[in-house]
Amino acid sequence: MFAVTILGNNSAVPAFNRHPTSQVVTMEGHNFLVDCGEGTQIQMINYKIRRSKISHIFISHLHGDHYFGLIGLINSFGLLNHQQDLHVFGPSPLEQIIELQLSVANTVLPFKLHFHTIDKEGVLIEEEKFIVKCFRTNHRIECYGFLFQEKKKPRKINPEKAKQYQIPSSFYDRLQHGEDYIQKDGTIIQNNLVTEAGVKTKSYAYCADTKYDESIIPHLQGADLIYHETTYLDNLRERAEIRFHSTSRQAGLFAQKAGVAKLLIGHFSSKYDTLEEFETEAKEVFPNTELALEGVAYTI
Amino acid sequence: MFAVTILGNNSAVPAFNRHPTSQVVTMEGHNFLVDCGEGTQIQMINYKIRRSKISHIFISHLHGDHYFGLIGLINSFGLLNHQQDLHVFGPSPLEQIIELQLSVANTVLPFKLHFHTIDKEGVLIEEEKFIVKCFRTNHRIECYGFLFQEKKKPRKINPEKAKQYQIPSSFYDRLQHGEDYIQKDGTIIQNNLVTEAGVKTKSYAYCADTKYDESIIPHLQGADLIYHETTYLDNLRERAEIRFHSTSRQAGLFAQKAGVAKLLIGHFSSKYDTLEEFETEAKEVFPNTELALEGVAYTI
Repeated sequence: MFAVTILGNNSAVPAFNRHPTSQVVTMEGHNFLVDCGEGTQIQMINYKIRRSKISHIFISHLHGDHYFGLIGLINSFGLLNHQQDLHVFGPSPLEQIIELQLSVANTVLPFKLHFHTIDKEGVLIEEEKFIVKCFRTNHRIECYGFLFQEKKKPRKINPEKAKQYQIPSSFYDRLQHGEDYIQKDGTIIQNNLVTEAGVKTKSYAYCADTKYDESIIPHLQGADLIYHETTYLDNLRERAEIRFHSTSRQAGLFAQKAGVAKLLIGHFSSKYDTLEEFETEAKEVFPNTELALEGVAYTI
Repeated sequence: MFAVTILGNNSAVPAFNRHPTSQVVTMEGHNFLVDCGEGTQIQMINYKIRRSKISHIFISHLHGDHYFGLIGLINSFGLLNHQQDLHVFGPSPLEQIIELQLSVANTVLPFKLHFHTIDKEGVLIEEEKFIVKCFRTNHRIECYGFLFQEKKKPRKINPEKAKQYQIPSSFYDRLQHGEDYIQKDGTIIQNNLVTEAGVKTKSYAYCADTKYDESIIPHLQGADLIYHETTYLDNLRERAEIRFHSTSRQAGLFAQKAGVAKLLIGHFSSKYDTLEEFETEAKEVFPNTELALEGVAYTI
Protein backbone atom coordinates (compact mmCIF):
# COMPACT_ATOMS: atom_id res chain seq x y z
CA MET A 1 0.00 0.00 0.00
CA PHE A 2 1.13 3.53 -0.81
CA ALA A 3 -1.07 6.09 0.94
CA VAL A 4 -1.08 9.25 3.02
CA THR A 5 -3.16 9.62 6.20
CA ILE A 6 -3.88 13.14 7.38
CA LEU A 7 -3.48 13.76 11.14
CA GLY A 8 -3.70 17.56 11.07
CA ASN A 9 -4.93 19.85 8.31
CA ASN A 10 -5.01 23.26 9.95
CA SER A 11 -2.56 26.12 9.84
CA ALA A 12 -0.96 27.94 12.78
CA VAL A 13 -3.62 27.85 15.53
CA PRO A 14 -5.81 24.80 16.20
CA ALA A 15 -9.52 25.53 15.66
CA PHE A 16 -12.85 23.93 14.75
CA ASN A 17 -11.51 20.54 15.77
CA ARG A 18 -8.76 20.85 13.16
CA HIS A 19 -5.18 20.25 14.26
CA PRO A 20 -1.78 21.55 13.20
CA THR A 21 0.03 19.84 10.35
CA SER A 22 1.00 16.19 10.42
CA GLN A 23 0.57 13.25 8.10
CA VAL A 24 1.72 9.66 7.78
CA VAL A 25 2.99 8.34 4.45
CA THR A 26 2.72 4.55 4.21
CA MET A 27 5.06 3.09 1.59
CA GLU A 28 6.71 -0.32 1.19
CA GLY A 29 5.90 -1.32 4.76
CA HIS A 30 7.19 1.91 6.32
CA ASN A 31 5.22 4.59 8.15
CA PHE A 32 6.92 7.92 7.46
CA LEU A 33 5.78 10.81 9.60
CA VAL A 34 5.73 14.15 7.80
CA ASP A 35 5.64 17.15 10.12
CA CYS A 36 4.54 16.84 13.70
CA GLY A 37 2.41 19.70 15.05
CA GLU A 38 1.34 19.82 18.68
CA GLY A 39 -0.91 16.91 19.59
CA THR A 40 0.29 14.60 16.80
CA GLN A 41 0.82 11.73 19.22
CA ILE A 42 -2.76 12.14 20.43
CA GLN A 43 -4.06 12.17 16.84
CA MET A 44 -2.10 8.96 16.23
CA ILE A 45 -3.97 7.34 19.08
CA ASN A 46 -7.28 8.71 17.80
CA TYR A 47 -6.70 7.31 14.33
CA LYS A 48 -5.00 4.08 15.39
CA ILE A 49 -1.67 4.78 13.69
CA ARG A 50 0.84 2.28 15.05
CA ARG A 51 3.42 4.54 16.67
CA SER A 52 5.84 1.63 16.90
CA LYS A 53 6.08 1.53 13.09
CA ILE A 54 7.39 5.10 12.84
CA SER A 55 11.12 4.99 12.20
CA HIS A 56 11.59 8.15 10.11
CA ILE A 57 10.24 11.64 10.73
CA PHE A 58 10.56 14.51 8.26
CA ILE A 59 10.15 18.10 9.48
CA SER A 60 9.62 20.67 6.73
CA HIS A 61 10.45 23.82 8.70
CA LEU A 62 10.62 25.27 12.19
CA HIS A 63 7.31 27.07 12.45
CA GLY A 64 5.70 25.63 15.54
CA ASP A 65 2.57 24.27 13.87
CA HIS A 66 4.86 21.85 12.01
CA TYR A 67 7.07 20.55 14.84
CA PHE A 68 5.92 21.43 18.38
CA GLY A 69 4.62 17.85 18.79
CA LEU A 70 7.98 16.25 17.99
CA ILE A 71 9.53 16.45 21.46
CA GLY A 72 6.40 14.93 23.01
CA LEU A 73 6.39 12.08 20.52
CA ILE A 74 10.08 11.30 21.03
CA ASN A 75 9.62 11.47 24.80
CA SER A 76 6.66 9.08 24.63
CA PHE A 77 8.62 6.67 22.43
CA GLY A 78 11.14 6.61 25.27
CA LEU A 79 8.55 6.03 27.98
CA LEU A 80 6.90 3.31 25.88
CA ASN A 81 10.31 1.64 25.61
CA HIS A 82 10.54 1.92 21.84
CA GLN A 83 13.71 0.03 20.77
CA GLN A 84 14.00 0.76 17.07
CA ASP A 85 16.35 3.50 15.82
CA LEU A 86 14.58 6.76 15.03
CA HIS A 87 15.73 9.03 12.20
CA VAL A 88 14.69 12.67 12.26
CA PHE A 89 15.25 14.89 9.22
CA GLY A 90 14.81 18.64 9.53
CA PRO A 91 16.47 22.03 9.26
CA SER A 92 18.91 23.32 11.87
CA PRO A 93 18.64 23.90 14.84
CA LEU A 94 16.01 21.22 15.36
CA GLU A 95 18.53 18.89 16.94
CA GLN A 96 19.55 21.54 19.46
CA ILE A 97 15.92 22.22 20.43
CA ILE A 98 15.17 18.55 21.01
CA GLU A 99 18.44 17.72 22.77
CA LEU A 100 18.06 20.67 25.14
CA GLN A 101 14.62 19.48 26.23
CA LEU A 102 15.77 15.88 26.66
CA SER A 103 18.77 16.93 28.71
CA VAL A 104 16.94 19.17 31.22
CA ALA A 105 14.79 16.18 32.17
CA ASN A 106 17.82 13.85 32.34
CA THR A 107 16.04 11.72 29.74
CA VAL A 108 17.93 8.65 28.54
CA LEU A 109 16.19 7.22 25.48
CA PRO A 110 16.12 3.43 25.09
CA PHE A 111 16.70 3.79 21.33
CA LYS A 112 19.16 5.55 19.06
CA LEU A 113 18.02 8.96 17.88
CA HIS A 114 19.71 10.03 14.64
CA PHE A 115 19.41 13.63 13.50
CA HIS A 116 19.91 14.42 9.82
CA THR A 117 20.13 18.15 9.28
CA ILE A 118 18.62 19.24 6.00
CA ASP A 119 20.42 22.18 4.44
CA LYS A 120 20.06 21.51 0.73
CA GLU A 121 17.88 19.80 -1.83
CA GLY A 122 18.54 16.17 -2.70
CA VAL A 123 18.12 12.55 -1.72
CA LEU A 124 17.37 11.84 1.95
CA ILE A 125 16.85 8.09 1.78
CA GLU A 126 17.49 5.63 -1.01
CA GLU A 127 16.55 2.01 -0.58
CA GLU A 128 15.99 -0.86 -2.97
CA LYS A 129 12.35 -0.07 -3.58
CA PHE A 130 11.94 3.63 -2.94
CA ILE A 131 13.58 6.97 -2.65
CA VAL A 132 12.77 10.06 -0.56
CA LYS A 133 13.97 13.45 -1.74
CA CYS A 134 13.58 16.96 -0.42
CA PHE A 135 13.17 20.21 -2.31
CA ARG A 136 13.02 23.85 -1.26
CA THR A 137 9.72 25.69 -1.10
CA ASN A 138 9.23 29.44 -0.98
CA HIS A 139 8.35 30.30 2.60
CA ARG A 140 9.21 32.94 5.21
CA ILE A 141 11.91 30.73 6.72
CA GLU A 142 13.95 27.84 5.29
CA CYS A 143 11.40 25.21 4.29
CA TYR A 144 11.45 21.88 2.42
CA GLY A 145 8.90 19.71 0.66
CA PHE A 146 9.32 15.95 0.42
CA LEU A 147 8.94 13.61 -2.56
CA PHE A 148 8.23 9.94 -1.90
CA GLN A 149 8.91 7.89 -4.99
CA GLU A 150 8.70 4.18 -5.72
CA LYS A 151 11.67 2.99 -7.71
CA LYS A 152 11.17 1.67 -11.21
CA LYS A 153 9.72 -1.81 -10.97
CA PRO A 154 11.48 -4.58 -12.98
CA ARG A 155 9.93 -5.53 -16.36
CA LYS A 156 7.87 -8.70 -16.45
CA ILE A 157 9.34 -11.60 -18.50
CA ASN A 158 7.11 -13.70 -20.72
CA PRO A 159 8.76 -17.14 -20.11
CA GLU A 160 7.40 -18.76 -23.28
CA LYS A 161 8.75 -15.99 -25.48
CA ALA A 162 12.11 -16.03 -23.69
CA LYS A 163 12.38 -19.76 -24.29
CA GLN A 164 11.39 -19.36 -27.93
CA TYR A 165 14.28 -16.92 -28.45
CA GLN A 166 16.63 -19.27 -26.53
CA ILE A 167 17.50 -16.73 -23.85
CA PRO A 168 19.26 -18.42 -20.92
CA SER A 169 17.71 -17.88 -17.48
CA SER A 170 21.02 -16.41 -16.28
CA PHE A 171 20.18 -13.38 -18.44
CA TYR A 172 16.68 -12.89 -16.95
CA ASP A 173 17.81 -10.33 -14.38
CA ARG A 174 19.22 -8.13 -17.17
CA LEU A 175 16.03 -8.64 -19.20
CA GLN A 176 13.99 -7.38 -16.23
CA HIS A 177 16.10 -4.23 -16.25
CA GLY A 178 15.38 -3.59 -19.92
CA GLU A 179 18.44 -4.94 -21.75
CA ASP A 180 18.19 -6.46 -25.22
CA TYR A 181 19.58 -10.00 -25.72
CA ILE A 182 22.18 -10.72 -28.43
CA GLN A 183 22.13 -14.26 -29.80
CA LYS A 184 25.36 -16.09 -30.73
CA ASP A 185 24.85 -15.29 -34.42
CA GLY A 186 24.59 -11.59 -33.56
CA THR A 187 20.81 -11.35 -33.90
CA ILE A 188 19.43 -8.74 -31.49
CA ILE A 189 16.31 -9.77 -29.59
CA GLN A 190 14.71 -6.53 -28.55
CA ASN A 191 13.73 -6.48 -24.89
CA ASN A 192 10.07 -5.66 -25.50
CA LEU A 193 9.68 -8.85 -27.58
CA VAL A 194 10.08 -10.94 -24.42
CA THR A 195 9.02 -8.62 -21.58
CA GLU A 196 6.30 -6.19 -20.69
CA ALA A 197 6.42 -3.11 -18.48
CA GLY A 198 6.33 -3.69 -14.73
CA VAL A 199 3.68 -2.10 -12.52
CA LYS A 200 3.78 1.67 -12.93
CA THR A 201 5.83 3.37 -10.20
CA LYS A 202 4.06 6.00 -8.17
CA SER A 203 5.03 9.13 -6.34
CA TYR A 204 3.66 11.51 -3.72
CA ALA A 205 4.86 15.02 -3.00
CA TYR A 206 4.23 16.99 0.19
CA CYS A 207 4.74 20.62 -0.78
CA ALA A 208 4.88 22.01 2.78
CA ASP A 209 4.24 25.73 3.35
CA THR A 210 4.90 27.90 0.35
CA LYS A 211 3.75 30.82 -1.67
CA TYR A 212 2.75 30.05 -5.27
CA ASP A 213 6.01 29.27 -7.03
CA GLU A 214 6.30 27.44 -10.35
CA SER A 215 10.04 26.91 -9.86
CA ILE A 216 9.14 24.07 -7.50
CA ILE A 217 7.33 22.14 -10.23
CA PRO A 218 10.29 20.25 -11.77
CA HIS A 219 10.80 18.42 -8.47
CA LEU A 220 7.41 16.75 -8.59
CA GLN A 221 6.25 16.94 -12.20
CA GLY A 222 3.79 14.21 -13.09
CA ALA A 223 3.38 12.95 -9.51
CA ASP A 224 0.37 10.78 -8.80
CA LEU A 225 -0.64 12.85 -5.81
CA ILE A 226 0.55 16.09 -4.32
CA TYR A 227 -0.44 17.84 -1.11
CA HIS A 228 -0.36 21.59 -1.57
CA GLU A 229 -1.19 24.10 1.09
CA THR A 230 -4.09 26.50 0.80
CA THR A 231 -4.10 28.73 3.82
CA TYR A 232 -6.57 31.20 2.30
CA LEU A 233 -9.27 31.56 -0.33
CA ASP A 234 -8.31 33.56 -3.40
CA ASN A 235 -9.94 36.82 -2.24
CA LEU A 236 -7.10 36.98 0.32
CA ARG A 237 -4.38 36.45 -2.31
CA GLU A 238 -2.46 39.53 -1.15
CA ARG A 239 -2.41 38.34 2.44
CA ALA A 240 -1.22 34.92 1.24
CA GLU A 241 1.58 36.58 -0.72
CA ILE A 242 2.76 38.68 2.23
CA ARG A 243 2.74 35.68 4.55
CA PHE A 244 4.38 33.29 2.06
CA HIS A 245 1.27 31.14 1.78
CA SER A 246 -1.00 30.08 -1.09
CA THR A 247 -4.66 30.32 -1.95
CA SER A 248 -6.91 27.50 -3.03
CA ARG A 249 -7.01 28.71 -6.62
CA GLN A 250 -3.20 28.87 -6.67
CA ALA A 251 -2.96 25.29 -5.37
CA GLY A 252 -5.19 24.19 -8.26
CA LEU A 253 -3.15 26.14 -10.77
CA PHE A 254 0.07 24.64 -9.40
CA ALA A 255 -1.31 21.09 -9.75
CA GLN A 256 -2.46 21.81 -13.30
CA LYS A 257 0.90 23.22 -14.40
CA ALA A 258 2.77 20.34 -12.71
CA GLY A 259 0.67 17.80 -14.62
CA VAL A 260 -0.05 15.74 -11.54
CA ALA A 261 -2.87 13.23 -11.36
CA LYS A 262 -4.49 14.38 -8.15
CA LEU A 263 -4.34 17.26 -5.66
CA LEU A 264 -4.94 17.22 -1.91
CA ILE A 265 -5.37 20.62 -0.24
CA GLY A 266 -4.86 21.46 3.42
CA HIS A 267 -3.27 23.86 5.95
CA PHE A 268 -6.48 25.83 6.25
CA SER A 269 -6.44 29.11 8.16
CA SER A 270 -8.30 29.21 11.47
CA LYS A 271 -10.33 32.09 10.01
CA TYR A 272 -12.53 29.54 8.22
CA ASP A 273 -15.00 27.39 10.12
CA THR A 274 -16.03 25.41 7.03
CA LEU A 275 -13.99 24.10 4.10
CA GLU A 276 -16.37 23.67 1.16
CA GLU A 277 -15.26 26.87 -0.56
CA PHE A 278 -11.65 25.70 -0.63
CA GLU A 279 -12.70 22.62 -2.56
CA THR A 280 -14.93 24.53 -4.96
CA GLU A 281 -12.29 27.11 -5.72
CA ALA A 282 -9.45 24.66 -6.41
CA LYS A 283 -11.70 22.43 -8.53
CA GLU A 284 -12.52 25.33 -10.84
CA VAL A 285 -8.89 25.16 -11.97
CA PHE A 286 -8.04 21.53 -11.23
CA PRO A 287 -11.07 19.20 -11.00
CA ASN A 288 -9.32 16.21 -9.42
CA THR A 289 -8.92 17.94 -6.06
CA GLU A 290 -9.85 16.64 -2.62
CA LEU A 291 -9.85 18.29 0.78
CA ALA A 292 -7.29 16.72 3.13
CA LEU A 293 -9.51 15.57 5.99
CA GLU A 294 -8.13 14.40 9.32
CA GLY A 295 -8.28 10.67 9.86
CA VAL A 296 -8.70 9.90 6.15
CA ALA A 297 -6.14 7.76 4.26
CA TYR A 298 -5.74 8.79 0.61
CA THR A 299 -4.41 6.02 -1.63
CA ILE A 300 -1.72 7.02 -4.08
CA MET B 1 -15.40 32.31 42.39
CA PHE B 2 -12.43 30.28 43.55
CA ALA B 3 -12.15 26.99 41.63
CA VAL B 4 -9.83 24.69 39.75
CA THR B 5 -10.69 23.22 36.34
CA ILE B 6 -8.80 20.13 35.24
CA LEU B 7 -7.53 20.11 31.63
CA GLY B 8 -5.29 17.07 31.88
CA ASN B 9 -5.16 14.37 34.56
CA ASN B 10 -2.77 11.81 33.11
CA SER B 11 0.88 11.20 33.73
CA ALA B 12 3.71 10.97 31.15
CA VAL B 13 2.03 9.48 28.05
CA PRO B 14 -1.48 10.44 26.90
CA ALA B 15 -3.88 7.48 26.93
CA PHE B 16 -7.55 6.53 27.22
CA ASN B 17 -8.56 10.03 26.24
CA ARG B 18 -6.68 11.43 29.23
CA HIS B 19 -4.20 14.22 28.66
CA PRO B 20 -0.96 15.35 30.28
CA THR B 21 -1.11 17.68 33.27
CA SER B 22 -2.72 21.09 33.14
CA GLN B 23 -5.27 22.95 35.21
CA VAL B 24 -6.75 26.42 35.50
CA VAL B 25 -7.14 28.07 38.89
CA THR B 26 -9.80 30.78 38.89
CA MET B 27 -9.37 33.27 41.73
CA GLU B 28 -10.35 36.91 42.18
CA GLY B 29 -11.09 37.36 38.48
CA HIS B 30 -7.81 35.78 37.32
CA ASN B 31 -7.30 32.56 35.37
CA PHE B 32 -3.99 31.07 36.48
CA LEU B 33 -2.69 28.24 34.37
CA VAL B 34 -0.85 25.56 36.32
CA ASP B 35 1.35 23.31 34.19
CA CYS B 36 0.85 23.03 30.47
CA GLY B 37 1.30 19.56 28.98
CA GLU B 38 1.10 18.98 25.23
CA GLY B 39 -2.34 19.81 23.85
CA THR B 40 -3.33 22.19 26.65
CA GLN B 41 -4.41 24.86 24.17
CA ILE B 42 -6.67 22.31 22.48
CA GLN B 43 -8.14 21.26 25.83
CA MET B 44 -8.82 24.95 26.55
CA ILE B 45 -10.86 25.15 23.36
CA ASN B 46 -12.67 21.89 24.20
CA TYR B 47 -13.63 23.16 27.65
CA LYS B 48 -14.27 26.79 26.68
CA ILE B 49 -11.56 28.30 28.89
CA ARG B 50 -11.06 31.88 27.79
CA ARG B 51 -7.44 31.91 26.70
CA SER B 52 -7.46 35.70 26.67
CA LYS B 53 -7.89 35.72 30.45
CA ILE B 54 -4.66 33.81 31.08
CA SER B 55 -2.01 36.26 32.27
CA HIS B 56 0.05 34.01 34.58
CA ILE B 57 1.37 30.52 33.96
CA PHE B 58 3.09 28.38 36.60
CA ILE B 59 5.26 25.43 35.53
CA SER B 60 6.10 22.98 38.32
CA HIS B 61 9.05 21.21 36.68
CA LEU B 62 10.61 20.39 33.33
CA HIS B 63 9.32 16.92 32.67
CA GLY B 64 7.63 17.14 29.30
CA ASP B 65 4.15 16.10 30.41
CA HIS B 66 4.05 19.32 32.46
CA TYR B 67 5.31 21.88 29.94
CA PHE B 68 5.52 20.65 26.30
CA GLY B 69 2.31 22.59 25.50
CA LEU B 70 3.71 25.93 26.71
CA ILE B 71 5.53 26.96 23.52
CA GLY B 72 2.41 26.21 21.44
CA LEU B 73 0.20 28.24 23.75
CA ILE B 74 2.56 31.23 23.75
CA ASN B 75 2.88 31.01 19.97
CA SER B 76 -0.89 30.94 19.57
CA PHE B 77 -1.29 33.92 21.90
CA GLY B 78 0.99 35.74 19.46
CA LEU B 79 -0.94 34.65 16.37
CA LEU B 80 -4.22 35.58 18.06
CA ASN B 81 -2.76 39.03 18.74
CA HIS B 82 -2.97 38.75 22.51
CA GLN B 83 -1.97 42.17 23.93
CA GLN B 84 -1.82 41.59 27.67
CA ASP B 85 1.52 40.94 29.40
CA LEU B 86 2.14 37.27 30.09
CA HIS B 87 4.05 36.11 33.18
CA VAL B 88 5.59 32.65 33.17
CA PHE B 89 6.99 31.16 36.37
CA GLY B 90 9.11 28.01 36.23
CA PRO B 91 12.50 26.46 36.91
CA SER B 92 15.56 27.19 34.78
CA PRO B 93 16.18 26.73 31.84
CA LEU B 94 12.54 27.12 30.78
CA GLU B 95 13.18 30.62 29.47
CA GLN B 96 16.03 29.38 27.28
CA ILE B 97 13.88 26.58 25.82
CA ILE B 98 11.04 28.95 24.93
CA GLU B 99 13.24 31.77 23.64
CA LEU B 100 15.19 29.40 21.39
CA GLN B 101 12.00 28.17 19.75
CA LEU B 102 10.61 31.68 19.30
CA SER B 103 13.86 32.90 17.78
CA VAL B 104 14.29 30.16 15.15
CA ALA B 105 10.89 31.11 13.72
CA ASN B 106 11.71 34.85 13.89
CA THR B 107 8.63 35.21 16.08
CA VAL B 108 7.90 38.70 17.36
CA LEU B 109 5.21 38.51 20.03
CA PRO B 110 2.68 41.35 20.20
CA PHE B 111 2.77 41.24 24.03
CA LYS B 112 5.42 41.34 26.73
CA LEU B 113 6.57 37.95 27.92
CA HIS B 114 8.05 38.02 31.42
CA PHE B 115 9.95 35.01 32.70
CA HIS B 116 10.30 34.53 36.43
CA THR B 117 12.77 31.79 37.21
CA ILE B 118 11.84 29.81 40.30
CA ASP B 119 14.86 28.64 42.26
CA LYS B 120 13.61 28.72 45.85
CA GLU B 121 10.48 28.48 47.95
CA GLY B 122 8.53 31.65 48.69
CA VAL B 123 6.06 34.22 47.46
CA LEU B 124 5.58 34.46 43.68
CA ILE B 125 2.75 36.99 43.57
CA GLU B 126 1.24 39.13 46.28
CA GLU B 127 -1.72 41.34 45.51
CA GLU B 128 -4.32 43.05 47.63
CA LYS B 129 -6.66 40.09 47.76
CA PHE B 130 -4.51 37.03 47.27
CA ILE B 131 -1.07 35.52 47.40
CA VAL B 132 0.59 32.74 45.38
CA LYS B 133 3.49 30.86 46.93
CA CYS B 134 5.64 27.98 45.76
CA PHE B 135 7.14 25.13 47.75
CA ARG B 136 9.50 22.29 46.89
CA THR B 137 8.21 18.79 46.35
CA ASN B 138 10.27 15.60 46.37
CA HIS B 139 10.70 14.57 42.75
CA ARG B 140 13.42 13.24 40.43
CA ILE B 141 14.26 16.75 39.22
CA GLU B 142 13.73 20.19 40.78
CA CYS B 143 9.97 20.52 41.23
CA TYR B 144 7.61 22.99 42.92
CA GLY B 145 4.04 22.95 44.14
CA PHE B 146 1.90 26.08 44.25
CA LEU B 147 -0.32 27.47 47.00
CA PHE B 148 -3.12 29.86 46.04
CA GLN B 149 -4.37 31.70 49.07
CA GLU B 150 -7.00 34.36 49.55
CA LYS B 151 -5.83 37.09 51.90
CA LYS B 152 -7.59 37.58 55.20
CA LYS B 153 -10.89 39.33 54.57
CA PRO B 154 -11.61 42.48 56.68
CA ARG B 155 -13.88 42.03 59.72
CA LYS B 156 -17.48 43.14 59.33
CA ILE B 157 -18.53 46.17 61.42
CA ASN B 158 -21.90 46.26 63.15
CA PRO B 159 -22.73 49.99 62.58
CA GLU B 160 -25.27 50.21 65.44
CA LYS B 161 -22.81 48.81 67.96
CA ALA B 162 -20.01 51.06 66.70
CA LYS B 163 -22.28 54.09 67.12
CA GLN B 164 -23.32 52.93 70.58
CA TYR B 165 -19.64 52.88 71.67
CA GLN B 166 -19.08 56.27 69.99
CA ILE B 167 -16.39 55.03 67.64
CA PRO B 168 -15.70 57.62 64.91
CA SER B 169 -16.02 56.42 61.31
CA SER B 170 -12.39 57.45 60.71
CA PHE B 171 -11.42 54.44 62.87
CA TYR B 172 -13.55 51.94 60.93
CA ASP B 173 -10.69 50.83 58.71
CA ARG B 174 -8.64 49.86 61.76
CA LEU B 175 -11.69 48.10 63.27
CA GLN B 176 -11.99 46.02 60.11
CA HIS B 177 -8.40 44.93 60.60
CA GLY B 178 -9.07 43.79 64.17
CA GLU B 179 -7.87 46.67 66.36
CA ASP B 180 -9.56 47.48 69.65
CA TYR B 181 -10.80 51.07 70.18
CA ILE B 182 -9.73 53.11 73.19
CA GLN B 183 -12.22 55.76 74.32
CA LYS B 184 -11.06 59.17 75.60
CA ASP B 185 -11.48 58.02 79.23
CA GLY B 186 -9.22 55.02 78.55
CA THR B 187 -11.99 52.42 78.30
CA ILE B 188 -11.01 49.67 75.88
CA ILE B 189 -13.74 48.60 73.49
CA GLN B 190 -12.76 45.14 72.41
CA ASN B 191 -12.91 44.68 68.66
CA ASN B 192 -15.23 41.68 68.74
CA LEU B 193 -17.88 43.77 70.58
CA VAL B 194 -18.44 45.82 67.41
CA THR B 195 -17.33 43.52 64.57
CA GLU B 196 -17.71 39.97 63.44
CA ALA B 197 -15.32 37.81 61.42
CA GLY B 198 -15.20 38.40 57.68
CA VAL B 199 -15.85 35.63 55.20
CA LYS B 200 -13.42 32.76 55.81
CA THR B 201 -10.39 32.91 53.51
CA LYS B 202 -9.71 29.88 51.40
CA SER B 203 -6.69 28.20 49.90
CA TYR B 204 -5.83 25.63 47.25
CA ALA B 205 -2.56 23.74 46.90
CA TYR B 206 -1.30 22.00 43.78
CA CYS B 207 1.27 19.49 45.01
CA ALA B 208 2.79 18.70 41.58
CA ASP B 209 4.78 15.48 41.12
CA THR B 210 6.22 14.08 44.32
CA LYS B 211 6.92 11.00 46.31
CA TYR B 212 5.14 10.76 49.67
CA ASP B 213 6.84 13.36 51.85
CA GLU B 214 5.38 14.78 55.05
CA SER B 215 7.93 17.59 55.10
CA ILE B 216 5.79 19.32 52.47
CA ILE B 217 2.77 19.49 54.79
CA PRO B 218 3.57 22.75 56.65
CA HIS B 219 3.27 24.66 53.37
CA LEU B 220 -0.37 23.78 52.88
CA GLN B 221 -1.66 22.69 56.29
CA GLY B 222 -5.41 23.14 56.65
CA ALA B 223 -5.98 24.03 52.98
CA ASP B 224 -9.54 23.81 51.73
CA LEU B 225 -8.52 21.74 48.75
CA ILE B 226 -5.31 20.09 47.62
CA TYR B 227 -4.47 18.28 44.40
CA HIS B 228 -2.07 15.43 45.07
CA GLU B 229 -0.69 13.12 42.45
CA THR B 230 -1.38 9.42 42.45
CA THR B 231 0.48 7.85 39.60
CA TYR B 232 -0.02 4.30 40.88
CA LEU B 233 -2.20 2.15 43.09
CA ASP B 234 -0.66 1.08 46.36
CA ASN B 235 0.37 -2.39 45.16
CA LEU B 236 3.00 -0.56 43.07
CA ARG B 237 4.30 1.44 46.03
CA GLU B 238 7.90 0.39 45.35
CA ARG B 239 7.73 1.51 41.77
CA ALA B 240 6.24 4.82 42.93
CA GLU B 241 9.12 5.25 45.38
CA ILE B 242 11.79 4.55 42.76
CA ARG B 243 10.21 6.95 40.29
CA PHE B 244 9.53 9.72 42.86
CA HIS B 245 5.77 9.35 42.55
CA SER B 246 2.96 8.55 44.98
CA THR B 247 0.23 5.98 45.31
CA SER B 248 -3.44 6.63 45.90
CA ARG B 249 -3.26 5.45 49.49
CA GLN B 250 -0.31 7.78 50.10
CA ALA B 251 -2.22 10.74 48.65
CA GLY B 252 -5.05 10.00 51.12
CA LEU B 253 -2.62 9.70 54.01
CA PHE B 254 -0.97 12.97 53.05
CA ALA B 255 -4.34 14.79 52.98
CA GLN B 256 -5.26 13.30 56.35
CA LYS B 257 -2.00 14.35 58.01
CA ALA B 258 -2.19 17.82 56.48
CA GLY B 259 -5.68 18.31 57.90
CA VAL B 260 -7.07 19.59 54.64
CA ALA B 261 -10.79 19.71 53.91
CA LYS B 262 -10.78 17.95 50.58
CA LEU B 263 -8.45 15.99 48.29
CA LEU B 264 -8.36 15.83 44.49
CA ILE B 265 -6.27 13.04 42.98
CA GLY B 266 -4.79 12.93 39.47
CA HIS B 267 -1.68 12.23 37.36
CA PHE B 268 -2.79 8.68 36.67
CA SER B 269 -0.39 6.31 34.99
CA SER B 270 -1.23 5.22 31.44
CA LYS B 271 -1.14 1.63 32.76
CA TYR B 272 -4.68 2.08 34.04
CA ASP B 273 -7.64 2.25 31.69
CA THR B 274 -10.15 2.92 34.48
CA LEU B 275 -9.89 5.08 37.60
CA GLU B 276 -12.40 3.73 40.12
CA GLU B 277 -9.77 1.90 42.17
CA PHE B 278 -7.81 5.10 42.71
CA GLU B 279 -10.85 6.69 44.30
CA THR B 280 -11.68 3.66 46.43
CA GLU B 281 -8.13 3.35 47.72
CA ALA B 282 -7.68 7.01 48.67
CA LYS B 283 -11.12 7.15 50.31
CA GLU B 284 -10.22 4.29 52.64
CA VAL B 285 -7.78 6.68 54.27
CA PHE B 286 -9.34 10.05 53.47
CA PRO B 287 -13.07 9.90 52.66
CA ASN B 288 -13.44 13.40 51.20
CA THR B 289 -11.52 12.52 48.03
CA GLU B 290 -12.54 13.10 44.43
CA LEU B 291 -10.99 12.02 41.16
CA ALA B 292 -9.71 14.98 39.14
CA LEU B 293 -11.68 14.59 35.92
CA GLU B 294 -10.90 16.55 32.77
CA GLY B 295 -13.33 19.35 32.02
CA VAL B 296 -14.69 19.47 35.58
CA ALA B 297 -14.41 22.64 37.70
CA TYR B 298 -13.98 21.92 41.42
CA THR B 299 -15.09 24.76 43.66
CA ILE B 300 -12.80 25.61 46.56
